[in-house]
Amino acid sequence: MNVKQAIAASDAASERDMANAIRFLAMDAVQAANSGHPGMPMGMADVAAVLFNRFIKIDPSTPDWPDRDRFVLSAGHGSMLIYAIHHLLGYADMPIDQVRNFRQLGSKTPGHPEYGHTLGVETTTGPLGQGITTAVGMAIAEEMWAARFGRKLVDHHTYVIAGDGCLQEGISHEAIDLAGHLKLKKLIVLWDDNHISIDGATSLATSMNQAARFRAAGWDVQAVDGHDPEAIAAAIEKARGSKKPSLIACRTVIGKGAPTLQGSHKTHGAPLGKDEIARARIELDWPHEAFVIPAGIKQAWEAVAARGAAARALWQERRATIRSAAAFDRMVAGEVPAAVFRKLAAFRKEHRQKATKVATRQASQMALEVINAATALTVGGSADLTGSNLTQTSQTVSIAPKKFKGRYIHFGIREHAMAAVMNGISLHGGFIPYGGTFLVFSDYARGGIRLSALMEQGVVYVLTHDSIGLGEDGPTHQPVEHLAMLRATPNLNVFRPADIIETAECWELALRDRATPSVLALSRQGLPMLRETATADNCSARGAYVLHAPEGRRDVTLLATGSEVEIARKAADLLAQIHGLHAAVVSMPCWEKFEAQDEAYRAGVLGTAPRIAIEAAARMGWDRWIGPNGAFVGMEGFGASAPAPELYEHFGITADRVADLAVTLARGRAS
Amino acid sequence: MNVKQAIAASDAASERDMANAIRFLAMDAVQAANSGHPGMPMGMADVAAVLFNRFIKIDPSTPDWPDRDRFVLSAGHGSMLIYAIHHLLGYADMPIDQVRNFRQLGSKTPGHPEYGHTLGVETTTGPLGQGITTAVGMAIAEEMWAARFGRKLVDHHTYVIAGDGCLQEGISHEAIDLAGHLKLKKLIVLWDDNHISIDGATSLATSMNQAARFRAAGWDVQAVDGHDPEAIAAAIEKARGSKKPSLIACRTVIGKGAPTLQGSHKTHGAPLGKDEIARARIELDWPHEAFVIPAGIKQAWEAVAARGAAARALWQERRATIRSAAAFDRMVAGEVPAAVFRKLAAFRKEHRQKATKVATRQASQMALEVINAATALTVGGSADLTGSNLTQTSQTVSIAPKKFKGRYIHFGIREHAMAAVMNGISLHGGFIPYGGTFLVFSDYARGGIRLSALMEQGVVYVLTHDSIGLGEDGPTHQPVEHLAMLRATPNLNVFRPADIIETAECWELALRDRATPSVLALSRQGLPMLRETATADNCSARGAYVLHAPEGRRDVTLLATGSEVEIARKAADLLAQIHGLHAAVVSMPCWEKFEAQDEAYRAGVLGTAPRIAIEAAARMGWDRWIGPNGAFVGMEGFGASAPAPELYEHFGITADRVADLAVTLARGRAS
Repeated sequence: MNVKQAIAASDAASERDMANAIRFLAMDAVQAANSGHPGMPMGMADVAAVLFNRFIKIDPSTPDWPDRDRFVLSAGHGSMLIYAIHHLLGYADMPIDQVRNFRQLGSKTPGHPEYGHTLGVETTTGPLGQGITTAVGMAIAEEMWAARFGRKLVDHHTYVIAGDGCLQEGISHEAIDLAGHLKLKKLIVLWDDNHISIDGATSLATSMNQAARFRAAGWDVQAVDGHDPEAIAAAIEKARGSKKPSLIACRTVIGKGAPTLQGSHKTHGAPLGKDEIARARIELDWPHEAFVIPAGIKQAWEAVAARGAAARALWQERRATIRSAAAFDRMVAGEVPAAVFRKLAAFRKEHRQKATKVATRQASQMALEVINAATALTVGGSADLTGSNLTQTSQTVSIAPKKFKGRYIHFGIREHAMAAVMNGISLHGGFIPYGGTFLVFSDYARGGIRLSALMEQGVVYVLTHDSIGLGEDGPTHQPVEHLAMLRATPNLNVFRPADIIETAECWELALRDRATPSVLALSRQGLPMLRETATADNCSARGAYVLHAPEGRRDVTLLATGSEVEIARKAADLLAQIHGLHAAVVSMPCWEKFEAQDEAYRAGVLGTAPRIAIEAAARMGWDRWIGPNGAFVGMEGFGASAPAPELYEHFGITADRVADLAVTLARGRAS
Repeated sequence: MNVKQAIAASDAASERDMANAIRFLAMDAVQAANSGHPGMPMGMADVAAVLFNRFIKIDPSTPDWPDRDRFVLSAGHGSMLIYAIHHLLGYADMPIDQVRNFRQLGSKTPGHPEYGHTLGVETTTGPLGQGITTAVGMAIAEEMWAARFGRKLVDHHTYVIAGDGCLQEGISHEAIDLAGHLKLKKLIVLWDDNHISIDGATSLATSMNQAARFRAAGWDVQAVDGHDPEAIAAAIEKARGSKKPSLIACRTVIGKGAPTLQGSHKTHGAPLGKDEIARARIELDWPHEAFVIPAGIKQAWEAVAARGAAARALWQERRATIRSAAAFDRMVAGEVPAAVFRKLAAFRKEHRQKATKVATRQASQMALEVINAATALTVGGSADLTGSNLTQTSQTVSIAPKKFKGRYIHFGIREHAMAAVMNGISLHGGFIPYGGTFLVFSDYARGGIRLSALMEQGVVYVLTHDSIGLGEDGPTHQPVEHLAMLRATPNLNVFRPADIIETAECWELALRDRATPSVLALSRQGLPMLRETATADNCSARGAYVLHAPEGRRDVTLLATGSEVEIARKAADLLAQIHGLHAAVVSMPCWEKFEAQDEAYRAGVLGTAPRIAIEAAARMGWDRWIGPNGAFVGMEGFGASAPAPELYEHFGITADRVADLAVTLARGRAS
C-alpha cells in the first residue's frame, strides 16, 4: 500500500471507528486479564485516534528512527491505549496474542509500559508525573540536536498524554516550570481532563485552575472537548505552531463508551464486567468479537504507519544531502570515544605522581574537564548547586531559551525533575547526561533514579557532600541511610571513591556502563591521594581492592569507602607503629562491582583476618562484608551541625577508635 | 514591664533598628562560624521585624502555648534569622553565647533550625519545600482544632517565610494545591522574592509567574516592597482578613545592608568578610560591637514578647470560662487511651480464635476500625488510594473546605505533601496522623519521611502493596529496595506483619511509639492467620520471635517477614513431612525492635542452626541475620507484571525452593 492508498483507506474508516478499536481492545484485554485500567484508554481514545491519525510521525517498522516523534503515555496505567495502538499500527512485537496476554508473565503487554521491553515504548511510566517530566528531557534533547544539526535532520515533536495524577504530583511543577522557562515549543501535553481520580471526583482534593497554572509557567493553553475530533485536531495544529510548550486540556469522560459506568471512578482500575462490555458492543454498534478488528479499521491504522514510513523515506533523502550526517550518526550512536579513557588514564598517572590532594567533588570536576574536552556527548547540570557539586567545566556553556548549542543545564532547585529530565535526554539518545545535587537530596530524586535503573539508562548522578564530612549544615544535609538506599536499588552502581585516582576511575566506569546508571558519592572535604601502587589498571573496576597490603601476615582487614579510607589508612599506620599489628586496607568504591567478582577474588580481598568496616553512614549492608565477628565504625543515628573534624571525633569515626577496635579483635582472635 | 510599657518601648526603637539587629547578628554569627547564610536573614530582616513586631502571637516564656501562632522558616538555611529573633525575644535557651556559637557542636544554633533542639523552632527545615508543606499541615490542624473547640480557644495563624528554592521544589505544588483547595485562610506565606538562587539569578532556571501560579491554586496574592514596613504591614493585615491562604511576594534585596555585596548570590551561603561587615556598620549607622544589641532595641523586641504574654494571659482567662477546656487539654496532650490497647488485644484474641485470613492491608483496616472507635486522636488519609490502602473507616469522615470536623484527608496524588503535612499535623499537636500509599511510592515521600524520623514525630505510614505480591501492576509498582531504604533510616520503625494478629500488634506498637514514626508494610494479597500460641503477649514487640518451634532439635531456622512467613511456614511443613528436618520459623516484623533486644534473646531466636531468610525484596541488610553460612531467598532485580502466584514461582520465592535450600544447608552442616 503506498501513501495515497493509505490515505484513501484512512478515509474509509472514521476516526470514531479507529477510536472504538482502542476502546474494545482495552475493555476486552482488561477483562481477559481480570485486572487493569480501562477508563483512561476509553476516555482518551478519541484524542489518541486524532493524534496518531493526523499528526504523529513514527514508522513502526523502524521504531528507533531518530527523527520520529516521541509519544509518552505519562498516565502509564492506561497502558492498553499504547498496546492497542501498537497492535493496530502493526508493530512487529504486538500481534493480537500479545494483547490477549495483557499483564501476563513474559508478555509484551505488562501492566505499565516498559521501555526496552516493548517496541516503540519511549519511556517506562506508571509512577505518576515521571512521563511528563521525562518528556521535557526529550524535548530538551530535540532542541539540542536541532541546534547542532539543523531542522532538516531534526524536527520532531514530543507528545504526552497526562492525567490528573501526573498534574497533581509535585514533579509536574518542576517539569512545567523548566519547560516553560526553556520555551520547549515542540512539547505538547494532552491532558485527560476527566475530573476523576481513584478516590472519586478530583474535587475531593484539588481546586487547581490548571489552565492558569500552565499559563503562569509560560505555556500556551487550550481547552477542547476530548470527544470532538475536529476540535482536538485544531488544537494540536495550533499547538504545533506555538513558540511555547502547549497544554491541551481535553475534557473527557472516563470510560467513555461503557454504557452504565462511564464517568465513574469505577472504570479507572478494574474490569468493566462481561455484561457492561456486551452492552457497550450494542450501544457503540461494534458487533465484532473480542480481539477482532475489522479490516477497514485495521487499514486505517496501517495508513498511519504508511504515512510514517513515507516521512522517514523523505527524511532519509534529506539526510543523504547533508554533510554533517555522519557526525549526526555518531552522536546518535552515543559511543564514548576511546580518547576519553586514554586521557583519564593519563590524568590518573599525573595525579598519582603529583599526589594531588583535593576533595573528590573537585577531583570529579578535574576529571570532567578531561572528559568534556574529549567528547561532546556529555551534558552536565546541577539542581542549583553548580558551585558546590562542581559539575560545570570550561567546555559546558549553559543552555537557555532559544540557545541550545550549550551542554550545561541549570535544572533549578528541582532534584526530581533533574533525574527524570536526564532520563529523557538519555532515552532520546545522543547524550550522556550527568547532574549534581547533595547526596542527601537523592531523597527528592528517588522516583527518577529508580526509573534510570529500571530503564537501564547510563545517566550519572554526581552526589556531593556525601557524609557528616559536609560539616556545619547539620543533620538535614548529612546523608546517613542514602548509600544503603542506593546500593539496595537493582542495576545502580554506587561509587564512593576515596581520592582523586579512584574518582577518575569511577568516572571511567560510569561512562563505560551505558546500561547502568551511576551514583558518584563525593566528599566536600579535601582527601589525600592514597594509591600506593603504580599500576595503570583501573583498580575500582573490581569494586574493591587491597589498597594497602601489610608485609607478611594480615592481622586485621580494614574495609572502607570514600573519605573513610583515609581514616583506615591512618589506623593501619597506628596499628603498625604502636601495636605491631599488620592491617590490610581495602578500599571498596563500588559494592556492586565487587559482588560481580568471582568468589576467589572476593575472598582474597576480604581475607580471613577479622574485619572492621569504616563508613560515615548507616551499617545496613556492611554485615555481608565484615561477617559475624567483625565490627563497624560509622553512624548510628542522624548527624549534627559542627565543623567536620569535630563531627568525626564526636561520632567516633577516627583512626584511633578503629585502631583500638582492631587491637581488641586481633588479640581476641589470637587468644 | 507591662503591656503598655512594652508598647511604649517598642515605639522608641524603629522597626528599622529592630531589623538591623537581625542583620548584624546574622552577619557577625556567620562570620564567627566562618560558614552559614547571611543573605536571607539580611534580605528578610525588615519583613520579619514587621511580622514579629506587629502581628505574631507567641509567648517566649511558654513556647508550647497551644494557641500560639506558628512561624515556619521554610528557607531553613536562613536559620540566623530565627536565632537572632529568638535571642532578641529572650527565649530561655538563646542567650548571646548561643548566637556566638552558631553552627558549633552542641549549640542551640545548628546550621538549619531543628525542632526539639531549640525552643520555639516549630519544625526542622533545610530540605527545601518541606517547611511550607509542613505549615500546610499545621494550618489544617488549626482548622481541625477550631472546628472541635471553637475560635475562643483556637485562633492562631501559621506564618511561613519561603524562598525561591521552596517554590521551585515540586513539593510546593502539592502544598499550595492542597492549601488552596482547603481554603486554609490562616496560612500566610511571605515569599522572599529576591531573584537570586545559588547558581545566580533565578532567571537562569525559571520564568514562573508565581503570583499567577498561586492564584491558580486558589490563593490570595499580594506583592510588596520587602523593605517598606508599612507596605508589609498592610499586606499582612489584608492577608489576615482573607478567606483563602495568602502569598505575599516580598520583593527584597538578598544580603540587604551589605554595602558592596547586597543583591548578589555571593551573600547567599558564605560569610561576608570582615571588611564588608565593617563598612556595613558605617553605612547602616550601627556603631555597636559584634553581638552587642543596644538596650532600646532589645526592649523593642522584648515588647513583642510582652504582647505575646499578655495575649496568652487573655487566652487563659477565656479558657477558664469554656466547658470543653478539659477535653481540649486531653487532645493537646495526645495520650492514646488505654482502651485502644485493650480493644486491640481483644481483637487479636478474636481473630486468633477465628483464624481470620485476610490481606494485611485489610487487617490494618479492621484494626483501624477498633482504634478509631476507641480514640479521636487518629486522623487518617491516603494519597488517592483510599480503596487500596484501606485507610478509611466508618468513623473517619473526610475534611473539606470549611468542614474540618472530620478526621480523614484526601491528600490527592501527593505522597510527598502527605508526609510533610502529616509532620505538620503531628507537630501542631493533638492528633496522630496516618497516611497511605503504595510502598513503592515511599520513593516520592522520602524527603518527608526522613523529617518524621529526624523530628521524632510518631506519624504512621500505611504502605500497602508491599512486594511482587501486588501482581500485574509490574515492576514500576513493585518495591524491591524500599524495605532496606526505610530500615536504614534512623529512628524509623519498619513493620512488616505476617498476618492479622501481627498487624494488630504492629498498629499497637506504632501508636505507643510517639517519638518514632512507623511504616506498616502491608500485603495486597490474602494471608492466613499464623499465630500458633494462645499468648496474650504482643509478640511483635520484640521485633522477631519464634512463630513455629519444632519439637526437639532445630536443623534449620527460617527467617521471614510479612507475606513470606506463610512460605516459610509451608517450607517447615515440607521439611518435616518429606525430609524429617526440624525447622524453626522466625517471624521478624520489626528489625529495629529486634536489634534493641538483648544479645541473649536475639541469639535464642536466631539459634545456631543454619539460617535462611525469605523476603520478597532486596537482600540488603539480611546478612546480619543469616550470617556467613546462611542463604537468602528474595529478589535479585526488579519485578515483573503477572499474577502474583506466578511471580513468586518465577522469582523462586517458594516453599519448595526454601525447603530444598534448607536440606542442602542442614545436610552440609551435618556432613
